[in-house]
Amino acid sequence: MNKKCVVLLSGGLDSTTTLAIAISEGFKPYAITFDYNQRHHIEIERAKMTAEKYGVHQLIFPLPLNLIGGSALTDNIDVPDNKIEEIGKGIPITYVPARNSIFLSVASAWAEANEINDIFIGVNTLDYSGYPDCRKEFIDAMERALTLGTKFHDRGKRIVIHTPLADMTKAEIIKRGSELGVDYSLTSSCYNPDEKGRACGKCDSCKLRLKGFAEAGLKDPVEYQ
Amino acid sequence: MNKKCVVLLSGGLDSTTTLAIAISEGFKPYAITFDYNQRHHIEIERAKMTAEKYGVHQLIFPLPLNLIGGSALTDNIDVPDNKIEEIGKGIPITYVPARNSIFLSVASAWAEANEINDIFIGVNTLDYSGYPDCRKEFIDAMERALTLGTKFHDRGKRIVIHTPLADMTKAEIIKRGSELGVDYSLTSSCYNPDEKGRACGKCDSCKLRLKGFAEAGLKDPVEYQ
Repeated sequence: MNKKCVVLLSGGLDSTTTLAIAISEGFKPYAITFDYNQRHHIEIERAKMTAEKYGVHQLIFPLPLNLIGGSALTDNIDVPDNKIEEIGKGIPITYVPARNSIFLSVASAWAEANEINDIFIGVNTLDYSGYPDCRKEFIDAMERALTLGTKFHDRGKRIVIHTPLADMTKAEIIKRGSELGVDYSLTSSCYNPDEKGRACGKCDSCKLRLKGFAEAGLKDPVEYQ
Repeated sequence: MNKKCVVLLSGGLDSTTTLAIAISEGFKPYAITFDYNQRHHIEIERAKMTAEKYGVHQLIFPLPLNLIGGSALTDNIDVPDNKIEEIGKGIPITYVPARNSIFLSVASAWAEANEINDIFIGVNTLDYSGYPDCRKEFIDAMERALTLGTKFHDRGKRIVIHTPLADMTKAEIIKRGSELGVDYSLTSSCYNPDEKGRACGKCDSCKLRLKGFAEAGLKDPVEYQ
């Protein structure tokens, strides 16, 4: 029987590739998707389609991060149109305070309740937006904290946070996913899609995605405005 | 002007005392209370009364931990009637998976969004139920992880998690709170109160509370069934 794992599945390009990698490594994934009142709510619909495609059990967990504030992704603040060379320098307004701390904590709770101690998250720090909660030192510290905060430690086990994309460029991620048969038309990366779900092509996330597809020599199958 | 802090206020005896201690140390507290579909929902009402009494801004944050499962506090599992000498040995069925990891992560997000880097939590490990997420080594690891996962680290600051009750017995907590004028009639500790909010007197939490008041030589002002 395949070992179970929890995969954080946002519906974006990175987390969808991470799900495919977890499967390719022989895991049986359980997907957790956070409905955090993000303005790009369409990614949740995409995450559902991906989970269904792979026949993966999915928990959609409501988290009203709009009550916390402080981010263009949950508040009524404009998503900026930054130059590509500026992306990743400094912490942008689209950063959601402590988002990955919260997501990983909830994922560890669900994992613990189901006797699972492997968690996959699609963070990466090469072609990324400069969020502090994507860095390796944060992930390592969280792995230790979550292990100490659950039953696993008392049983001589530990939580393992897998970050298969950590050292990959966006182009490498897209190539790897394509090899594994990921259907990128089911993913959504845009922070500011229109009402039909079409990507803006202007936000940091769109720019990193388009650059990645260009460098991979592949065509992005999602629709742009 | 007093330095701001975030206090995790459940409405129980420990967190209410922690709020009073934070104020006594010169902080201006912001209270965060989690509505996690706990069966002892009355504690939220008590937390509101305490926040109002102290004139403290309060965020009530919904977290549907019943979707996670695995605990007698959120599932339809009986709360046990353990012998007092057995409490704290092993991890009981009332443990909610990774609860304090989740609570501290959300608290750090709210703190970060409001430029606050001090967080108070009323964990203690002497007269406690044996939950892994109350131990000092967990709190220390979480402090480090949350610092790395927020903007503070990039600014040369850090999140400080204050645990003023860490090394106090329940009796010492009650004595300290009484000195500070805490109104314990506004607190609720019972895991299994009746529909009028009266405590059962039988769950681990009631037993630890009653033992604490007895050892402090004080009368518990809440109603029992």
